[in-house]
Amino acid sequence: MKELPIKNLGDLKNKSEDELKSLASDIRTHIIETVSKTGGHLSSNLGIVELTIALHKVFDSPKDKIIFDVSHQTYTHKLLTGRLINETNLRKLDGYSGFAKKSESEHDIYEAGHSSTAISAAIGLSYAKEHDDSIGEIVAVIGDASVTNGLSFEALNFLATKPDRKVIIIINDNEMGVSKNVGALAEAFNKIRIKRKHRFAPKVLKNFLFRVKSSIKSFVYPNPNIFSALQFRYFEGIDGHDFNQLNDYLTFAKNAKQSVILHVKTTKGKGYEFAEKDVDGKWHSVLPFDIKTGVIKNSSGQIVGEHLSRTLVQKTVENDKIYVITPAMILGSGLKPYVTSFPEHIIDVGIAEENAAVIASSMAENGLNPIVFMYSTFLQRAYDELLHDVGRTSSPVVFCVDRSGIVADDGDTHQGIYDIAYLSSIPNFTISAPSCIEEAIKLLELGLTKKYGPFVIRYPKCLLQNSSLENFEYGTWNVINKLNNVNIITYGSDVYDIYAMLIKEGLTDKIGLVNARFINPYDKKLMDEIIDVSDKIIVYEQVIKTSSLGSKIKEYLFDKEYNKKYMHFALEDSYLETGKVEELKTKHKIDYKKLLEELKK
Amino acid sequence: MKELPIKNLGDLKNKSEDELKSLASDIRTHIIETVSKTGGHLSSNLGIVELTIALHKVFDSPKDKIIFDVSHQTYTHKLLTGRLINETNLRKLDGYSGFAKKSESEHDIYEAGHSSTAISAAIGLSYAKEHDDSIGEIVAVIGDASVTNGLSFEALNFLATKPDRKVIIIINDNEMGVSKNVGALAEAFNKIRIKRKHRFAPKVLKNFLFRVKSSIKSFVYPNPNIFSALQFRYFEGIDGHDFNQLNDYLTFAKNAKQSVILHVKTTKGKGYEFAEKDVDGKWHSVLPFDIKTGVIKNSSGQIVGEHLSRTLVQKTVENDKIYVITPAMILGSGLKPYVTSFPEHIIDVGIAEENAAVIASSMAENGLNPIVFMYSTFLQRAYDELLHDVGRTSSPVVFCVDRSGIVADDGDTHQGIYDIAYLSSIPNFTISAPSCIEEAIKLLELGLTKKYGPFVIRYPKCLLQNSSLENFEYGTWNVINKLNNVNIITYGSDVYDIYAMLIKEGLTDKIGLVNARFINPYDKKLMDEIIDVSDKIIVYEQVIKTSSLGSKIKEYLFDKEYNKKYMHFALEDSYLETGKVEELKTKHKIDYKKLLEELKK
Repeated sequence: MKELPIKNLGDLKNKSEDELKSLASDIRTHIIETVSKTGGHLSSNLGIVELTIALHKVFDSPKDKIIFDVSHQTYTHKLLTGRLINETNLRKLDGYSGFAKKSESEHDIYEAGHSSTAISAAIGLSYAKEHDDSIGEIVAVIGDASVTNGLSFEALNFLATKPDRKVIIIINDNEMGVSKNVGALAEAFNKIRIKRKHRFAPKVLKNFLFRVKSSIKSFVYPNPNIFSALQFRYFEGIDGHDFNQLNDYLTFAKNAKQSVILHVKTTKGKGYEFAEKDVDGKWHSVLPFDIKTGVIKNSSGQIVGEHLSRTLVQKTVENDKIYVITPAMILGSGLKPYVTSFPEHIIDVGIAEENAAVIASSMAENGLNPIVFMYSTFLQRAYDELLHDVGRTSSPVVFCVDRSGIVADDGDTHQGIYDIAYLSSIPNFTISAPSCIEEAIKLLELGLTKKYGPFVIRYPKCLLQNSSLENFEYGTWNVINKLNNVNIITYGSDVYDIYAMLIKEGLTDKIGLVNARFINPYDKKLMDEIIDVSDKIIVYEQVIKTSSLGSKIKEYLFDKEYNKKYMHFALEDSYLETGKVEELKTKHKIDYKKLLEELKK
Repeated sequence: MKELPIKNLGDLKNKSEDELKSLASDIRTHIIETVSKTGGHLSSNLGIVELTIALHKVFDSPKDKIIFDVSHQTYTHKLLTGRLINETNLRKLDGYSGFAKKSESEHDIYEAGHSSTAISAAIGLSYAKEHDDSIGEIVAVIGDASVTNGLSFEALNFLATKPDRKVIIIINDNEMGVSKNVGALAEAFNKIRIKRKHRFAPKVLKNFLFRVKSSIKSFVYPNPNIFSALQFRYFEGIDGHDFNQLNDYLTFAKNAKQSVILHVKTTKGKGYEFAEKDVDGKWHSVLPFDIKTGVIKNSSGQIVGEHLSRTLVQKTVENDKIYVITPAMILGSGLKPYVTSFPEHIIDVGIAEENAAVIASSMAENGLNPIVFMYSTFLQRAYDELLHDVGRTSSPVVFCVDRSGIVADDGDTHQGIYDIAYLSSIPNFTISAPSCIEEAIKLLELGLTKKYGPFVIRYPKCLLQNSSLENFEYGTWNVINKLNNVNIITYGSDVYDIYAMLIKEGLTDKIGLVNARFINPYDKKLMDEIIDVSDKIIVYEQVIKTSSLGSKIKEYLFDKEYNKKYMHFALEDSYLETGKVEELKTKHKIDYKKLLEELKK
């Protein structure tokens, strides 16, 4: 695709079904080709091509407001609204985000990233509409997995009582969130079949069904469902790849006076066989791949989650009180080895981070050994439960927090740069950060002893293997390169990366290097030694400065009346855009080049 | 009540209905008398007397695990399980908490405080039960308001798919949370009437209903509801004050093989006329009161929320884009004046803090002026949305955060001592803390200009009035007592309290006092002046040390190479027990006596 598939949205209005099909096919091919080079969210974008085209045909964006929940499924939307995403710009620094982005387009109505905000955002817009005639219809497009999160339910429960506040909700049901969905809603959804011929056309329904009592409705909806239970006008079984059905139902919803829920069935990965057949979710968010063979490029380095997962397999053989809890992240968290060995010991709660945290607290308080696997950016949603249900009771829950630090490609909504700050505000939490696979495993073993209360192990997706684990004890750091008058304190992947740089630059005789594998509590004994010998102390980390290790150390240095030099490489309190880790480090002035300049001063 | 109403739970088993009624009456009288002296949660405790007695008669606690959601309704439970709560000990330091507390009793199964954790906690226990024969039935008692929070839905959605995991859920429906409930669930609940004669006795139902298809069930449950939609075995309309009905249904649930939901109707405030007639929720959590006249003791000082509310009434006259959003806290947040004047401009989302935050972000991004009123301890539950939906987009939402700082009487689950720490971890948030009513109003006006992005005003329930507001500008502090060589920096209610102490002790010529009304950003210009003149700087605050103002200042002092004395009065990173503010300050070594000692050194 060398140019945009349509010049402007108006071009869609008069296209025939065949033309629309051809457009969908072109877009699909372009998305497959682009993502095979850039990586990105493939399956969800392939599933929603026709639905997106139909939405833009029936509605008039940006007057009509189409809000995409999560918004990683907006590639077609971007292509239709003037953004020629391709291999040179998708998910690139200064290119196009993989998510909705207001700064890119007036057609991006709400910036999402985390799941399940769309209906609440639509409610907010419905209030704005009362003051702003330029706002037309309000449409929230939400996946079947996102609907199961508590936030969506809160919004539905609210909206259902506001008949004068019209929101069109499209449930894009592909029976997968990241991977196969779980929970009662998902089970009910899975029973819904596409109705090739609808018993009532929407128009008839409009005149009949909406005026009858709920007791009669139950004949029409023999399967009770929560949407009709909440008294929504709900239509299920719509074929999300059939332009005629989509057109009929969307037009009906547009003309309706009150909120309507359309439950649209789509096929995730549609049009790319490998992705269509995927049940694990490996085509949900992929690295670059070979289109013909379906071979996905591997991550460089060892995937930490998989190593922890394999360790837990061994541990569960010895200790059947171990349970792994994860919110819809089995594949992303590297838990495949565990789920294969102990399916009964893995609890996938769906996209329900808060539920995961409370179940874990209750298990820990009643003698079990729960381990929660969650991405750094998603753990935020359970902050209250971490503070209130886990930290307050000092319950021995182990948290394996993946995608910590700067996260490549997914932009500002997926950064793992806040976890140390928000976890530091919770009393009783141990916060650790392994520098290598072996250390991650050691930390897991330590957490499993239940001696230390809530125990966080935060790590990036990949780390190196490295077997030197001298003096590994709770709360201790270790010296990687012997202390000198200039010393660097760092943790995580930066430990061995900086060590490699010191070697390369011939600086190992001049610069000490310390692995601060514990951030809370940190190693005050070693810190005192460092203070004693240092003319300059440098802390290097990939998190925001507030409440970072460097900030804690600075306070300690003040208490110790340290009056030599101190440098802190960390991110200003801000949000990071899309880009590669190295690009973002450079842009935010914490790249190794800058560090090296400081070392050579 | 000079002794416990029963010696042990076994005594309940053989009591006749009349004896149970007499017991309920005695307990009710005792609760009214006790709370009239101590203050506390009255209405919910009066509503649940018979249900609690019936639960302990049918189940065998602590083998059977009865989890009370929120757990402020556990006074009867405490009285039945060996805790003679009375005016000398209820909600007192070293006495009995107003909530469930494991350290008090083996009958307190899960410590709650925030709403809607009970079903998740029950699920966690159901896993522990597989490993521990000593665990019997698992019962979650949850209010109708708490069921509407997203966390409860996540747990229900999970539990519904686990037929081998039996949890008995009792919905204690008194049609009130704190005040009148909102949302579609609440509306549906309100239509349920107590069935004096049930069409099917539970026993018959057991043999019939549970084996039929859902399509037939819809005849039995003509009102579709989310519980039956989720395929739960659900019984509605049970009279929560009728021991026979309660006994029948609870016994049935105990004997059932799978999860059962019993929807029990109770009367909030039952047995105390003033509380029974209450629609606003003023008898939900009360200060001491006169039993005969129903006159509730007033708070000492001016209620900040009410002043802000009245200010917003004026502002809304001029600006109809102002909307007030609150999660079920209209009365507690002092919003009564606003709701009376502008019922269309107040959005009560029920106990749904996350929904409140996202609605607010969307409103702010679309030209409206949303103001969110929430207690400090409840705002935690929206942390992810604050960071992701409000802070990231720098949306101009004003947050009026009540019950900040040390909170009296309600114990460790209701402290407002973490907000500065967790809000500091969110980029773009202004954090302010008024020292008096006038300053609170000024801050609100500043926030409403929308110039500063997300704007937090955090305050205790009451502040003094005080008209001196010199040089009030964004980000500035002001000098209350002229700078000296010893200077105190503080904020909130402590400003004028400490000033009063300085006057009383004749120290105004010796000690400077600064009102740090902005915590982020703070006033570096004035800070530099303070550094210049000080031999000793003292920061005094009622929050945990991590990420506190004192911690930020310490880092700044290090940067400025300040090498004179610095003292920081703040709470260690920990949780605070039940007690009065002064008692807790003393226990945690930040009372004014200690401060005075420091000043006199």
